[in-house]
Amino acid sequence: MKNSLSELKELARLCRGDILKMTSVASSGHPGGSMSSIELYLSVFNRANIDPKNPFDEKRDKTVVSHGHTSPGVYSSLARLGFFAIDDVISGFRHPGSIFEGHVTRGIPGIEWSTGNLGQGLSAGVGFALAAKMKNEDSKVYVFSSDGESPKGQISEARRTAKKENLNNLIVLVDYNDIQISGRARDVLPVNIKEEYKSAGWNVLEIDGHNLIQINEALEIAENNKMGPTVIIASTIIGKGVSFMKNRHEYHGSPLSDDELDKALKELNIENDIEKYRKMRENLDLTKTKVSYPNIKLDVEKGKPRIYPKDKKIDNRSAFGNALADLAKENKNKFPIAALDCDLFPSVKLAAFKEVNPEGYIQIGIQEHNAATIAGALSTSGVLTFFADFGVFGLDEPFNQQRLNDINHTNLKTAITHSGTDVGEDGKTHQEVNYIGLTRSLYNTKLIVPNDPNQTDKVVRYAASTDGNIIITMGRSKLDIILDENGDIFYGENYEFNYGDIDVLRNGEDITIITYGTYTNNAVKTADNLRKENININVIGVPTPLDYDEEKILPFLKDKIIITLEDHNLENGIANELSKTIVKNNVSVKDFINLGYKDYAASGSSKLIQKQNSLDVDSLTKMIKELY
Amino acid sequence: MKNSLSELKELARLCRGDILKMTSVASSGHPGGSMSSIELYLSVFNRANIDPKNPFDEKRDKTVVSHGHTSPGVYSSLARLGFFAIDDVISGFRHPGSIFEGHVTRGIPGIEWSTGNLGQGLSAGVGFALAAKMKNEDSKVYVFSSDGESPKGQISEARRTAKKENLNNLIVLVDYNDIQISGRARDVLPVNIKEEYKSAGWNVLEIDGHNLIQINEALEIAENNKMGPTVIIASTIIGKGVSFMKNRHEYHGSPLSDDELDKALKELNIENDIEKYRKMRENLDLTKTKVSYPNIKLDVEKGKPRIYPKDKKIDNRSAFGNALADLAKENKNKFPIAALDCDLFPSVKLAAFKEVNPEGYIQIGIQEHNAATIAGALSTSGVLTFFADFGVFGLDEPFNQQRLNDINHTNLKTAITHSGTDVGEDGKTHQEVNYIGLTRSLYNTKLIVPNDPNQTDKVVRYAASTDGNIIITMGRSKLDIILDENGDIFYGENYEFNYGDIDVLRNGEDITIITYGTYTNNAVKTADNLRKENININVIGVPTPLDYDEEKILPFLKDKIIITLEDHNLENGIANELSKTIVKNNVSVKDFINLGYKDYAASGSSKLIQKQNSLDVDSLTKMIKELY
Repeated sequence: MKNSLSELKELARLCRGDILKMTSVASSGHPGGSMSSIELYLSVFNRANIDPKNPFDEKRDKTVVSHGHTSPGVYSSLARLGFFAIDDVISGFRHPGSIFEGHVTRGIPGIEWSTGNLGQGLSAGVGFALAAKMKNEDSKVYVFSSDGESPKGQISEARRTAKKENLNNLIVLVDYNDIQISGRARDVLPVNIKEEYKSAGWNVLEIDGHNLIQINEALEIAENNKMGPTVIIASTIIGKGVSFMKNRHEYHGSPLSDDELDKALKELNIENDIEKYRKMRENLDLTKTKVSYPNIKLDVEKGKPRIYPKDKKIDNRSAFGNALADLAKENKNKFPIAALDCDLFPSVKLAAFKEVNPEGYIQIGIQEHNAATIAGALSTSGVLTFFADFGVFGLDEPFNQQRLNDINHTNLKTAITHSGTDVGEDGKTHQEVNYIGLTRSLYNTKLIVPNDPNQTDKVVRYAASTDGNIIITMGRSKLDIILDENGDIFYGENYEFNYGDIDVLRNGEDITIITYGTYTNNAVKTADNLRKENININVIGVPTPLDYDEEKILPFLKDKIIITLEDHNLENGIANELSKTIVKNNVSVKDFINLGYKDYAASGSSKLIQKQNSLDVDSLTKMIKELY
Repeated sequence: MKNSLSELKELARLCRGDILKMTSVASSGHPGGSMSSIELYLSVFNRANIDPKNPFDEKRDKTVVSHGHTSPGVYSSLARLGFFAIDDVISGFRHPGSIFEGHVTRGIPGIEWSTGNLGQGLSAGVGFALAAKMKNEDSKVYVFSSDGESPKGQISEARRTAKKENLNNLIVLVDYNDIQISGRARDVLPVNIKEEYKSAGWNVLEIDGHNLIQINEALEIAENNKMGPTVIIASTIIGKGVSFMKNRHEYHGSPLSDDELDKALKELNIENDIEKYRKMRENLDLTKTKVSYPNIKLDVEKGKPRIYPKDKKIDNRSAFGNALADLAKENKNKFPIAALDCDLFPSVKLAAFKEVNPEGYIQIGIQEHNAATIAGALSTSGVLTFFADFGVFGLDEPFNQQRLNDINHTNLKTAITHSGTDVGEDGKTHQEVNYIGLTRSLYNTKLIVPNDPNQTDKVVRYAASTDGNIIITMGRSKLDIILDENGDIFYGENYEFNYGDIDVLRNGEDITIITYGTYTNNAVKTADNLRKENININVIGVPTPLDYDEEKILPFLKDKIIITLEDHNLENGIANELSKTIVKNNVSVKDFINLGYKDYAASGSSKLIQKQNSLDVDSLTKMIKELY
């Protein structure tokens, strides 16, 4: 403890003033909940092992603020404890020229995870706590939550994983002020928070959330507990500290008027110096200030690539599983390696990995939102992290969780084993045909769609050894090994994967097929069929459809009949991306024929679905002969 | 009860044979769980008020199968009870030429909701039960669930709403076979199902799920209960009925080999006639068979449009709230009208609606996955349904739930009140800048982005009176009323909204701004500024960016300098859509300048963010003058 409880009490008074000032200066923000959480924030930041002078030390304790709109409370507490200057916060809060955004933002000293979309914070805390456990560190993780966000299902999910993984180092503090935007929490939607945590097997403590002695005693108990995670349910009063704000939901998300502010500051015995901050704010410039993201860098040994021989059919997902097992072997004693699974163990091909690295196999159960967030947090903390799942479960279902990973600049490798319509006979609920379009929505995430098992091997090793979020999408079917025009393995010993490169698989004349992933095989076979009839077409594989080298692809577009072929929604896949390239570069093309899916496909084998949609080799060969 | 319990017992034996045959004929599918659920399916389908001869009668009871992979059990039970021919099921299961998909599919007689992505079924059941309650019908809703899917957070959410809304007519049957893909459920992830339902205030019954007497007694109790929803936790045995399949997770998702099938059918005393079905299957053609979707059609009175006067600034979301209240008034005695809210009551502008139609205001709390699915199910059932939320919470967070609504061809109107960067100062977690790209992923959903409050009014009335899923996206800011070149209201008395139309807001010469939504105001003001300097530019509003009339827009593209202006991710918005139009129609353009967002925007007011990114009127005017 850096400050005594009486010092904290004084800081709480000052913070209340700061909260009111910054929201009034910004004319927006959430004062009410910030004032109900303030004693909790000050107590934790004061006792946790986080050094304001070195806030991202690797062995630090971590905190997650799940109800990120209480940023005024968080920023003021951290400022008053020496993490940064309070004047910068009060003047810059919610201004585009400041780092102090409306919701807490990772990278600001003392802040570990950007939140704002409720219900995700506990999963992030589980990720951080799991990382500490995997690294045998005795650091702690404190998660701040609220009664308002408690209904979110992802919290139920995270609770279960915390218990299953026996995370003694995880402490949740629930700010129970019984107020949310629309009124009393109990009226909006009753949640039996205490019984829910109990039924999940947690230790439950109940305290007065404004009583510094009770808070610190409860934290002491929780920190020394060895029987699984602990929740501290803290009864609080929204707007606490200012008589007319108490228990009023109107102050959840609205600042005080100038008159109200004056009155409130008088009650708090704090000088009203708001004009000073308004002037400072006027002088802020709009040059966007950025924070940096404290990911722990890993020095990953890629190992020796595997070469799958010509005569062997194998699925990309098995090549992924094999490469991951190799990576686990190569890097075993350097850092922990995790693979998260949502009850699809045999399908996502984690058996070899689990064999080599059983402690790194993390079974989350059917809880994809929770899995995606845990994986994101884990990936920042010195654990090489893969999340393996089907496309609908790894991208569609946790889309907003992947988006928060993107916002948080995590270092997650998402391996999608079942994408497009190549998912077996499961039907449209399982067909993720929008992976290019969805990843397009994420500004900081790379997408790679390998064309065969040999390329998959290289891509997995590349992803493991490259910083940042990377999504690899594969299909379920066994594929032929792609050969070059001489009959040698295309992605063989001399091939190296470079992000952005295109693969010139066949060289031809007027017609170019542009493709990627599962259907690359069809394109190559079609070209080889046509060659027998003296029709030579180009086949270009584009394994990075969101970010390919335009200079290299242009010669295969210019004055050609272009045929795009994809196991994807026609409107947001490679045809779409190429349209932008064509317009941007003012390329003249002879024709632009787009093959893919205009609607949900039927339930059937990949082969029959291809046939049904005229995307199989026979249909393609026939179509191109007619064009010629 | 149509059949006696001893008849049901005999049907269960036959169904087990059907399940094994169809999965072996298809060489895929899930026999294990189908065999553990079969007595539950037969009992419910036998006693529920669903007429095989008229399966979509409006007053029917409804069922939802949340663990949709047990489709063999569902299809065989329904077939054996007369809903369709068992031979069609066994021969067609999981074949692209058949309606009997891998996961249960809405529109097949007896099946109310397509599932496959776990954890959504209970929310759909809540939607159906709520519809019955709102219509004062005494029909019941039975939801089949499983222990394997119980970890999904959305189930926790749905439980709370069912209790809050006091849905006595809702009965859940949990198939508790303790097996899932990766092994024993208790090892994969422990879930205290009984305590979780209890802490949510449900009635809990526990039975032997293979004992027809116990099942039917429990259903009798649940059907007559008046104290909130009931769950029946049914202990079962996976693979029940065949000695070597019992309790083996290997049979969760794998069919029997021919030898095993022969052995199993002998145990069941059923003839092995699988070759007959294999021959039938060979003769299925690939012409895709479609089911129809039994939505109840509503005859919606649109009411008299409101015209907002020139001198009044108003936000589109308030125009939405007003139009919705008008619609509620106009249609009050015709059918129920619902508006679902996730604790954003003041922000999503539902006050006027609640005033007029308090019983239609449904507060779900912060449970967006649950809300989106409830809304989808409700919208099919004779309730005019709006779901109002911010973009990140109504689209991003429940993306996969909206996708399942799309697959189910529901009739939902999603009103997004905070989209783009126009969300207040909340920062990037709250900025939904991908609404065009995301909706592009949904094959059956329309997107409308109105340009001002007057157009919003018309769009809301159009959406209410038009079948199908429609998403309307708006911003938070107050906007000027858009005027035409004569200074009259553009979207005034003579304006009618037609889906697909473009709005020629200003007529000019060589330069065309293409825009929509919040930034349309900027484009018009820029044009009016430039006109004062004798520079005349075209301004085209495109309120339906996914589906605009290409013929009408082409003259404004051809040989023009095109400037796209959008409050959206640059890569998947209108610039992207126009690129496809330009390539497809082989249009020559002078230049194609794309203005929007290349990265997450800062936290700040819409005005400051526009300025920071040079998207404000001054920056636009300056830029175009330099072009000219």
